[in-house]
Amino acid sequence: MANEEPKTVPQQITMKGGDGPLSYAKNSSLQKGVVDATKGMIIHAIANNLDMDKFCSQSSSQTFRIADFGCSIGPNTIFSMQNIIQALEQKHHENNHGNSPTILEFQLFFNDHSTNDFNTLFKSIPPSWPYFVAGVPGSFYRRLFPKSSIHIGHSSNALQWLSKVPQEVVDCKSPAYNDGSIYCRGIEKEVTKAYIAQFEKDMESFLNGRGEELVNGGLMVILMGGVPNGIPLSHTAIGKFYDLFGSCLLDLTNKGLVNEEKVKSFNLPLYFPSAKEVKVLIERNGRFSIESMNEITEQLKRGQPLPSAQNCISHVRAGFEGLIKDHFGTEIVDEFFACYAKKHLQSGFVFGDNGVDNTLMFMILKRI
Amino acid sequence: MANEEPKTVPQQITMKGGDGPLSYAKNSSLQKGVVDATKGMIIHAIANNLDMDKFCSQSSSQTFRIADFGCSIGPNTIFSMQNIIQALEQKHHENNHGNSPTILEFQLFFNDHSTNDFNTLFKSIPPSWPYFVAGVPGSFYRRLFPKSSIHIGHSSNALQWLSKVPQEVVDCKSPAYNDGSIYCRGIEKEVTKAYIAQFEKDMESFLNGRGEELVNGGLMVILMGGVPNGIPLSHTAIGKFYDLFGSCLLDLTNKGLVNEEKVKSFNLPLYFPSAKEVKVLIERNGRFSIESMNEITEQLKRGQPLPSAQNCISHVRAGFEGLIKDHFGTEIVDEFFACYAKKHLQSGFVFGDNGVDNTLMFMILKRI
Repeated sequence: MANEEPKTVPQQITMKGGDGPLSYAKNSSLQKGVVDATKGMIIHAIANNLDMDKFCSQSSSQTFRIADFGCSIGPNTIFSMQNIIQALEQKHHENNHGNSPTILEFQLFFNDHSTNDFNTLFKSIPPSWPYFVAGVPGSFYRRLFPKSSIHIGHSSNALQWLSKVPQEVVDCKSPAYNDGSIYCRGIEKEVTKAYIAQFEKDMESFLNGRGEELVNGGLMVILMGGVPNGIPLSHTAIGKFYDLFGSCLLDLTNKGLVNEEKVKSFNLPLYFPSAKEVKVLIERNGRFSIESMNEITEQLKRGQPLPSAQNCISHVRAGFEGLIKDHFGTEIVDEFFACYAKKHLQSGFVFGDNGVDNTLMFMILKRI
Repeated sequence: MANEEPKTVPQQITMKGGDGPLSYAKNSSLQKGVVDATKGMIIHAIANNLDMDKFCSQSSSQTFRIADFGCSIGPNTIFSMQNIIQALEQKHHENNHGNSPTILEFQLFFNDHSTNDFNTLFKSIPPSWPYFVAGVPGSFYRRLFPKSSIHIGHSSNALQWLSKVPQEVVDCKSPAYNDGSIYCRGIEKEVTKAYIAQFEKDMESFLNGRGEELVNGGLMVILMGGVPNGIPLSHTAIGKFYDLFGSCLLDLTNKGLVNEEKVKSFNLPLYFPSAKEVKVLIERNGRFSIESMNEITEQLKRGQPLPSAQNCISHVRAGFEGLIKDHFGTEIVDEFFACYAKKHLQSGFVFGDNGVDNTLMFMILKRI
C-alpha cells in the first residue's frame, strides 16, 4: 500500500484510564486548578452573553444540552459541567426573579476518543446528580452531534492536541524534518510551518463541526494552552518540560533500550498557539463571534501553590503513558518514566518556574 | 444499620465485557437470531404505526433520536439500531416518493448500567457509520433522558431482568422464602407473588420513565422473554435450564467449595411474564397504546438451527459470569462453569428442546 502514511504517534490519544494510583483520574489536580480559577469567569460569561429566554421560547421543552469536547476521564469534566449548570440556573433564576414557571432539564454529553475510559468516567458521576448524562465517542475534529442540538459547548486543555503529527516532521527526507526534537519548538521555520498547517486544518474542522452543532446564539467556552505572542514554545515552561521529556528517549536509545528509528519517528501531536493566531483562525472561519478572550496565567498562578515534584511526575505519567506505550511498546513504559522521574528530581525542574510562562487562553465564542 | 437490605444479587447486572473468547460480544449469536427474525416486523411496525410527518413538521431540525434500553455490549444492539434506521429511511422515502427536501439525521443512544463495558460497545460501532452515537449509563427503571426527546425506544431481551431480587424470597423466615430453588418457578404461591410484585413495580417504573421521555406518537419496540399463558416457568425450557444451573451450586456446596448460606441467599432477579400479564400492566399504566403484540417463538424456531452444546455453554457463561462472580467471588467462577459445562453435556440438554417452549413477546407501543 504505497499511499499508507507511516506510523508516527497514535491518533487517538487518551489519558491513563482506571482509578489506580497512576491514573489520570487520580492525577489531574493541576487541571483542577484551572477549573476552579475559571469558575467565576464562566458564570460571568454566561450571565453576560447567553440569551436564555430565546432558547426557552424557541422550543417546547426546557432542555439545555451541554457538551464537553475532550472530556478525558474525570473528575475535572464533572466540575466544569457543574459550573456551567450553576451559571445557567443562576441566570434563569435572575431572569425570572426567582419565580420561573419552567423547570430546566440538563442533558450533558461527555466527548472523547472511543478508547477513552468511559466506564471510569461514568463511575465518577455523583449517583444523585439530577442531570441526564451520555458519553459520546469520537474525535472532536469531526461532527459528533446533530444540527443545532447543543446550547453550550466546553473544551478544556484539549485543543492544543492535534488530530495527528504532521507527516513531514518525522520524514528524514523532508526539509521540515524535526531533527533532534520531539515537539514544535517554534524556532525551525519549516517544522513550525508544518505544525501550523496541521493546527489550522484542525481548528477549522473543530469550528466547522461545532458551528453545525451549536444552536444559533449558543456559546463555546474554550480553555487552551498557548504561548505569549512572539515567544517560541521552546523558551516557555512547557518547552523546557518537553526538552527534559525528550532527553529521556535519547538516554534510553544510548542504553540500547529503544530503537533509534523509533525515536526519529516520534513527535508530539501538540501545538501551542498565540492568542493572535487563534483569533485570526476564528475570524477567518466566520461561524463564531469572539465575545471575550483572556490570557489568565498570572491570575491562575497567584491563586495556586506550585505542585510538588512527585505530583508533577505522576501527572506527566498519567498524561503521556498512553503515547509512549503506543509508539515504543509496553515493555519500555516503566523504564521511561523511571528515567523521567530521576531527571525531573535531579534537575530540580519545577513546572511554571522554568522558562517563560505559558498562557492559558480563555475564550467565549458565540454561534452567529 | 438496621434498615440496610441484606445483599442478595447485585443490582447492576451486565454481560461479560471485552471481546475475548468468553465475552458476551463473541457469545450472543442466540440473541442475534432474535434480531434477524424481528427485522421484518420492525420495518412493518414503523411503516404502519409511525406518523413521521408529524415529527418533521413539529420541529425545525430533522433529527430522529433512537434509544436502546439495556443494550449490553454489542454487536446485536448495532444490528437492531440499523434495522430501525432502515425502517425510518424507507418510510421517509416512501412518504416523499423519493424526492424529500429534508435529509434525516439520526442520534442513537445506547443505554445500559454504568458498569456495562461501553468501550467494547463503542469499538464495535462501524467506523464509517453516518449516525451520531452516545452511551447512556444507568438503570432503565429510572429516568434517563429529557422530556419528549426520544422518537423510537427499543428494548430487547432486557425487561425480564428485575431491578432486584425481592427480599422475601431469600429470607428464611418469610413465607415467601424460595427454599431449594434459585428462580421463580411459578408454582410456589408466595414466592411467585413476591416476584410478581417486583415485576409490576419495575414495569411501572419503566413505562413511567419512557412515558416522559418519548415524544407524543413515539414508538417503543419491545422484545422480552415470557411464558405461554398459564404455564409455570419451571415447565418451560428456560425453567429446565435454571434447574440445571442451580444444581451446580448444590454440587459445589456438597463439595464444600461454596458456603451454604451464600447459596440460600442467591436467587435470580428474573421474571418471565405471560403476554396477558404484560398487557394488563401496560393498560393499567395508561401512557402507551398497544399497537401490536405477538408471541413469536414458533416463527423464530422455524428459521433457526439449534445451537451446538458448546455454543450454549459459552452463551451461559457470557450471560451469567458476572452474577456468579459478584455473589460467590471470583475464585469459584471457573469451577462453577466447568461443573455447568459437564452437566450440560452429560444431560444432553438442548435449549428449546426441553420443556414447553418459552414465548418471545414482540410489542409495539405508542406514546399517547
